[in-house]
Amino acid sequence: MTAPWHGRAAAVATLTFDVDAETPILAAGGRYADHMTTMSHQSYGPDVGVPRILDMLDELRVPATFFVPGWVAEHRVGLAASIVDRGHEVAHHSYSHRSPVTMTPVQERADFARALDVFEAQGIEIRGHRAALWGASWQTPGLIAEHGLAYDSSLMGDDRPYRIATDTGPIVELPVHWSLDDWEQYAYVPEPHVGSVIESPVKVAEMWRAELDGMRRYRCLFNLCVHPFLSGRPGRIAALRGLIEYALELGDVAFARCRDVADAVCADPAISPRTLTPPPADVYSP
Amino acid sequence: MTAPWHGRAAAVATLTFDVDAETPILAAGGRYADHMTTMSHQSYGPDVGVPRILDMLDELRVPATFFVPGWVAEHRVGLAASIVDRGHEVAHHSYSHRSPVTMTPVQERADFARALDVFEAQGIEIRGHRAALWGASWQTPGLIAEHGLAYDSSLMGDDRPYRIATDTGPIVELPVHWSLDDWEQYAYVPEPHVGSVIESPVKVAEMWRAELDGMRRYRCLFNLCVHPFLSGRPGRIAALRGLIEYALELGDVAFARCRDVADAVCADPAISPRTLTPPPADVYSP
Amino acid sequence: MTAPWHGRAAAVATLTFDVDAETPILAAGGRYADHMTTMSHQSYGPDVGVPRILDMLDELRVPATFFVPGWVAEHRVGLAASIVDRGHEVAHHSYSHRSPVTMTPVQERADFARALDVFEAQGIEIRGHRAALWGASWQTPGLIAEHGLAYDSSLMGDDRPYRIATDTGPIVELPVHWSLDDWEQYAYVPEPHVGSVIESPVKVAEMWRAELDGMRRYRCLFNLCVHPFLSGRPGRIAALRGLIEYALELGDVAFARCRDVADAVCADPAISPRTLTPPPADVYSP
Amino acid sequence: MTAPWHGRAAAVATLTFDVDAETPILAAGGRYADHMTTMSHQSYGPDVGVPRILDMLDELRVPATFFVPGWVAEHRVGLAASIVDRGHEVAHHSYSHRSPVTMTPVQERADFARALDVFEAQGIEIRGHRAALWGASWQTPGLIAEHGLAYDSSLMGDDRPYRIATDTGPIVELPVHWSLDDWEQYAYVPEPHVGSVIESPVKVAEMWRAELDGMRRYRCLFNLCVHPFLSGRPGRIAALRGLIEYALELGDVAFARCRDVADAVCADPAISPRTLTPPPADVYSP
Repeated sequence: MTAPWHGRAAAVATLTFDVDAETPILAAGGRYADHMTTMSHQSYGPDVGVPRILDMLDELRVPATFFVPGWVAEHRVGLAASIVDRGHEVAHHSYSHRSPVTMTPVQERADFARALDVFEAQGIEIRGHRAALWGASWQTPGLIAEHGLAYDSSLMGDDRPYRIATDTGPIVELPVHWSLDDWEQYAYVPEPHVGSVIESPVKVAEMWRAELDGMRRYRCLFNLCVHPFLSGRPGRIAALRGLIEYALELGDVAFARCRDVADAVCADPAISPRTLTPPPADVYSP
Repeated sequence: MTAPWHGRAAAVATLTFDVDAETPILAAGGRYADHMTTMSHQSYGPDVGVPRILDMLDELRVPATFFVPGWVAEHRVGLAASIVDRGHEVAHHSYSHRSPVTMTPVQERADFARALDVFEAQGIEIRGHRAALWGASWQTPGLIAEHGLAYDSSLMGDDRPYRIATDTGPIVELPVHWSLDDWEQYAYVPEPHVGSVIESPVKVAEMWRAELDGMRRYRCLFNLCVHPFLSGRPGRIAALRGLIEYALELGDVAFARCRDVADAVCADPAISPRTLTPPPADVYSP
Repeated sequence: MTAPWHGRAAAVATLTFDVDAETPILAAGGRYADHMTTMSHQSYGPDVGVPRILDMLDELRVPATFFVPGWVAEHRVGLAASIVDRGHEVAHHSYSHRSPVTMTPVQERADFARALDVFEAQGIEIRGHRAALWGASWQTPGLIAEHGLAYDSSLMGDDRPYRIATDTGPIVELPVHWSLDDWEQYAYVPEPHVGSVIESPVKVAEMWRAELDGMRRYRCLFNLCVHPFLSGRPGRIAALRGLIEYALELGDVAFARCRDVADAVCADPAISPRTLTPPPADVYSP
Repeated sequence: MTAPWHGRAAAVATLTFDVDAETPILAAGGRYADHMTTMSHQSYGPDVGVPRILDMLDELRVPATFFVPGWVAEHRVGLAASIVDRGHEVAHHSYSHRSPVTMTPVQERADFARALDVFEAQGIEIRGHRAALWGASWQTPGLIAEHGLAYDSSLMGDDRPYRIATDTGPIVELPVHWSLDDWEQYAYVPEPHVGSVIESPVKVAEMWRAELDGMRRYRCLFNLCVHPFLSGRPGRIAALRGLIEYALELGDVAFARCRDVADAVCADPAISPRTLTPPPADVYSP
């Protein structure tokens, strides 16, 4: 194949859902398990948000990718399978949702492998990874390659897919960005401190539409990240639906699962692996 | 009765007013009693906001529920009765407005009972409870059942009412959410740190209307929480009035007191009590 | 006189300008005097903002009140007189812009008197006071009465003027509110932490107009507080001008200096002094 | 020449791009070099944002000024030249992007000179300076004059250019302001804490347009500061393009490089150097 990764589309949209459930809160402190309201706020994601999102995707006939922490898949048996059964992709989102940059290399390696064990035991095939809190370390790409996965989706070095060289072979990067994430717009919890504003879905849809329109000009990857416990709520899922309908009407936006984009990137001869290294920081105190 | 809890309505709206007065500030430190401006900011709620809200509800002929801390009812004799006399419900909102998750189980139990003593002495019948700061502990539902109340309104596990099993029988949960709360939109005080933004009522009404429209699609409970010291102000109560008028014009939104919704939920055979437990958090530090 | 304080107007507007200059920053730490950029940001207020505001008020023919810290009047000789010469009122805004609740009673008393000394030396007649940072203590009203001033403008117990009893006689309160202040909308400085958002003047004007419209319904005091170093900027003063023009076109909004409103309140027989006391906070830790 | 600095234009627009890359993050702690995601977020600026911005400027035929830290020019050889080659100005933005007010005078002096060494080695002629984080010290103007540069662009004492006297001669100040900066609107990073909101480009363009319109009334310098790692993103650059197109259509806004404005200011006989000194802060604790 010699087609460009985006085919004939002006932009490619990957709808991704990070099914974090309780993990981002518990990762900030196990004591938050005592907070019944906060735990109920998080369980809304898999319990109410995910089924509602799956129904919406069915109605609109668009594919999606669900990044699931191993801990969530393990404690909600059947959740990952219910997603795959509807034709969507389930991908690796750490085991415990602790950011790699807060773990030692040994801890990150163990957490990474533990999630794969959970999915393997459930018969879920994994092709890609997204770092918890998008906190990739310089070790992360190598772990992905080493475990035979095809892609990562945690970096921001471009708004088009790229490839990263590692010691055990190249991986594809499907870049994300905080402006295409619903967390910074909607996430409010009194504690731990994860966010402090609650925006209107009208503003959020307006902003995402502006980015989609801009991306069509530059043939980018519209890699949207939403959380079922946030965007599963009635007014917000309506805004998300409106955005998808807008993209469908444009006619030049292709929807795809992350794994399919990764395959297309590997088949695009114009994209060569980049070697990435930390910046020299000697002038700065460590 | 075999009718669904929502009757024939597309969504049910419970207008709830948390009459906190000085308590959220004092609960952050008794020394704030010395701050005359801040105390005046809080007293505006019962002194100016509540009468204005009661007049508006009369004009629009919609019922509401007022969650009142026992401390407020105790120090403003006649306030709770003035609400009940207008046909609205008064409900339990703790005694001191300290969050249950910041108290010991013994403290929470004592605070809970003390509020009921205040209301009993004033002849106010209490049927439901809302945790201060929506900080329910896993003990809270049991306390509610134990004292013979019918419902709680502090959790977020769904956007439709549900029932919770406790050791002393089931209670109804009328779920809340921070996005249907005016606190995150309007609450600003230099200290203590309770919030830092002041949004336009135009944005707030837009957001709440989007949620109401979404909820009509999924037959949800539009459980709006506003604070008289915040939404009692002239521009904000106008926005709230506009939202209520919008819902009335739709024709498919029913307005009810929380206690009436709780009764309807108990009579709906499709809603069985759920047994809720804390998530296993052993992988996380306590 | 037996006329109501607002005369025949639906609402009365007091345009107030807090000419803080460097004081709110220096009050957070004298070391900030070393920050040349931050100091220039503050000096913009009296140097650029005030003349521009005075010109706008001339063009629109509306009176205003300028609250000036004694320190600012002292170090910018001629500033206060230049305001009075244009027909506007200059009022007391502390000497050093330290909040009363952060000072001992003795310190507050000394700071209060020192400002009056500055104005007396410059021949500026003072009739009213606004606490720095709106941080009035329970001692503040008494200090105002004791020094023979007519009014305060630092509290939030109502949105209509009221009177406060003190040991040395009653004073008038012209209440403020954070939602009618430009600080929470525009104030951004990297440090000290005084604010973190910069809103569009479009949003701010929309919010203030909503409040003015609501206040006309309830015959309130539209007591707007803006800062020359913030709202003196070109896009923001245009929004302020548009708001004033809107109010003028309504025809039922009266513009007045604070001292004139205070006189009208004193002449309104329906307004009796209130005795205000701190709330009982014994249940809360000090 | 006796023409006013702005010629016949109602306002003069200087489009300035601060090509910070990794420096603002590393200046907050060298350990952030370990955060691969965050580093990729920053490298997007020179790698994706700058080329995209240069193309847009070509299409619209408007000149611009790029403030580049010496560290960035040093580690990305060819970057500064690629900007100059397109007809734009490259200016001094410190070596390490540490704020002068966080350095000792000796450190600031060394950092200042080190950046000039880098540019000299690359054959890039430097005429002006902007302090990192707009954190100018009272020593900064003197350093600029001493090294023979013509202008600074870090202060906020006016919204029209002014001149500052120093011991080694006067410099021109092209004032900035946080409301004409994209940082406060778009900058979000989980850590270090550099910002916490992500606004819609629609709001940002609306706010900047309001300021431009206001500035045309007062013949100001519309000194816009944007960052390639922020405003280089597709939806945001579209908003920026729309703003520039709006200004071009107005017909009374002149676009210029900073150095050209500085020359025009020097040639304007109505602008005399001001002597600036720190405010007396003895009443405040240091």
